Amino acid sequence: MDTLHTMNKTGLQEHYHMLKGQFDHFCAQNISLNMARGKPSPAQLDLSMDLLNVLTPKDCLQVENGIDPRNYGGLDGIPEAKGLFAKMFGVRSSQVFVGGNSSLTLMHDRVARAMTHGVEDGCLPWSKLPKVKFLCPVPSYDRHFEICALFGIEMIPIAMTEEGPDIDEIEQLVREDDAIKGMWCVPKYSNPTGITYSDEVVRRLARMQTKARDFRLFWDNAYAVHHLTNTPDELRNIFEDVAGTENENRVYMFASTSKMTFPGAGISAFISSEANITAAKKRFFSVQTIGADKINQLRHVRFFEKVGGIPALMKKHAEILKPKFAEVDRAFTASLAGKGIATWTKPKGGYFVSLNVLDGCAKRVVALAKQAGVTLTTAGATFPYGVDPRDRNIRIAPTYPSMSELEQAMKIICVCVELAAVEKLLAV
Amino acid sequence: MDTLHTMNKTGLQEHYHMLKGQFDHFCAQNISLNMARGKPSPAQLDLSMDLLNVLTPKDCLQVENGIDPRNYGGLDGIPEAKGLFAKMFGVRSSQVFVGGNSSLTLMHDRVARAMTHGVEDGCLPWSKLPKVKFLCPVPSYDRHFEICALFGIEMIPIAMTEEGPDIDEIEQLVREDDAIKGMWCVPKYSNPTGITYSDEVVRRLARMQTKARDFRLFWDNAYAVHHLTNTPDELRNIFEDVAGTENENRVYMFASTSKMTFPGAGISAFISSEANITAAKKRFFSVQTIGADKINQLRHVRFFEKVGGIPALMKKHAEILKPKFAEVDRAFTASLAGKGIATWTKPKGGYFVSLNVLDGCAKRVVALAKQAGVTLTTAGATFPYGVDPRDRNIRIAPTYPSMSELEQAMKIICVCVELAAVEKLLAV
Repeated sequence: MDTLHTMNKTGLQEHYHMLKGQFDHFCAQNISLNMARGKPSPAQLDLSMDLLNVLTPKDCLQVENGIDPRNYGGLDGIPEAKGLFAKMFGVRSSQVFVGGNSSLTLMHDRVARAMTHGVEDGCLPWSKLPKVKFLCPVPSYDRHFEICALFGIEMIPIAMTEEGPDIDEIEQLVREDDAIKGMWCVPKYSNPTGITYSDEVVRRLARMQTKARDFRLFWDNAYAVHHLTNTPDELRNIFEDVAGTENENRVYMFASTSKMTFPGAGISAFISSEANITAAKKRFFSVQTIGADKINQLRHVRFFEKVGGIPALMKKHAEILKPKFAEVDRAFTASLAGKGIATWTKPKGGYFVSLNVLDGCAKRVVALAKQAGVTLTTAGATFPYGVDPRDRNIRIAPTYPSMSELEQAMKIICVCVELAAVEKLLAV
Repeated sequence: MDTLHTMNKTGLQEHYHMLKGQFDHFCAQNISLNMARGKPSPAQLDLSMDLLNVLTPKDCLQVENGIDPRNYGGLDGIPEAKGLFAKMFGVRSSQVFVGGNSSLTLMHDRVARAMTHGVEDGCLPWSKLPKVKFLCPVPSYDRHFEICALFGIEMIPIAMTEEGPDIDEIEQLVREDDAIKGMWCVPKYSNPTGITYSDEVVRRLARMQTKARDFRLFWDNAYAVHHLTNTPDELRNIFEDVAGTENENRVYMFASTSKMTFPGAGISAFISSEANITAAKKRFFSVQTIGADKINQLRHVRFFEKVGGIPALMKKHAEILKPKFAEVDRAFTASLAGKGIATWTKPKGGYFVSLNVLDGCAKRVVALAKQAGVTLTTAGATFPYGVDPRDRNIRIAPTYPSMSELEQAMKIICVCVELAAVEKLLAV
């Protein structure tokens, strides 16, 4: 078939009726599928059932620093859990603060603290400034944007390239504007594009000159070990680039086990320079908490040992996820390839496929899919303020549904993408 | 023996040398005991070892609302956990938000939010006000004071009576000063006095007129079920007093299982009016978290069922704790009664004995005890800014040490109390 753009009006009208018929057929089936969020599937959660019973009473008496993990204390976590994250990210244990079940909470709390207390001695709390701005690569993670919105932080969208966010533009902006205090980054298998920042982008982010002395990279390393191929992307260790430089305190890394074990019951980490960790413990964490759940930390450490290490566990996740991502690509290719109405990513890791439809059609596609029983991520959610200026990006989250549900959902999505495109072309 | 106050100088000097001999003897023994914090003892923690393995894989599939507790979602907690707290405090489940392992975090976060966003529509964020003040009954819990200090909230000490904080003074202050936005309360078995607020005090706190429309009671119900006798205190349910009044949103209650199961690995709750909970979920919690650890919530629910309910478990705690509190009273009575140099509380619940020594002697007693190997809570910690104006209050935390350690520690403390008193009397 030619691209839809070369069809004449009659051809488009006939095509519209054919698609509308398919669409109505789906609508009549009372389908209800939710693909809005990047949630692991029950089959993935089943991989971690040994978490429930992996700890023996004896384990509780054998924590490295002699602390009783059941009791109060141990503000920054048990040594074993700090070591787990340190090893995963190539940092020292002294750079790790282990948090509760949510790295989102650590991110939110970091911004909240910056608002009320600032991030560095001698710098004002951000709430005392007339304006605070964050750079936001787009498309990206809606919950980052919601944190900024809550605290009134202005978001500046930065276009993504295949190498990561447009580093030339970033360097220029941060050099000139001291209101720019932060930047959200999902540096590996980015949400939703799947892009991993190149070595050069990482290096330049680490070394660039910023007018604001208290500029921070919010480095959300959510998908560090979440590969979908046997040739995983490698993300440059940004801590090696800032170490020993005047930017040593620039990086706030966040991570969690949410998509390794149980998303609702994992452990998280805040990773930064030793100076930042020491200051945060002294000035903030010690007032907010007596320490996160150390039993759950120990539970995770022992569980990862039991399954032969995190990479072994993540391979099992990948085995479940690969066919799903393959199905997304297969369905899009079968239905949409060559029609000039959509492009999509083929990620090597992470939880999403980023779909771009014709300009002005994303909201319509999501609305149509909803009507046919498939809930997608809200159109625009991947942009600051929920506004996609071209109204074209849709985040596809194929992990949660079963294969048969996904196949059905993809059929529906493909019809909706094409239907919205034809509607647009007919309206011109 | 007469009170020390009636001894002549020679007698006091002789007494001093006798006490100093005992003190030096302790110092020579290289004792190291920590009684600084209200921590459960290992024997108490052992009561909850079934927590580790109480959950079966099947349990994870049987949550009341059909949610998978392993996965994301369920912002305010699983129904079973909300019901647990609702039953404990005589409120509706819709008034409960279940948090992570620390009620301190919920308290801190509530104050932090009030600073950045305020607590009620139409009221300014507290950080935009020239001054924010909190009423602080004294002596009380140092971590409450640290939260105020962190956010620059001025603390106004309020004297405690046998009925709770001086309600006449409170009513007058809040009626006249709209900078008073909050009050810290440990309404049952207060930290450290053990006092439970009387019905009248609770009712008047609920109903008093406050100049600030956004005044809040921070109701830290930490020791609700932590009885030490068979005739427990009963705390009036303050939610019944505010229900249906214009003060319906006044109460922020906080609670946790920290001193029921594992202090480091429990679950917590924020309990308030339905309107407050709904607003907090929508405006704040949903940006900060996807929900606390639901597996740990389910674990606690099942564990409490297994041990026959919370009261049954708390009775076992009381059996361990009663002899320790009895020992504190026995030792003080044996060594200090009738000497006119100390008074102490005999709490019916909670975790502390409040000791008042001669004015100006608390710091000295704590320093002497430290020298002899017993770490006590810092003198002054029970007051705002760490300053006890009479320098007389010491918080005794007898729960953690073993009985033999406690006996030894009490001998040392008693000698230090008397030694400091004699030093003072000799110096006059």
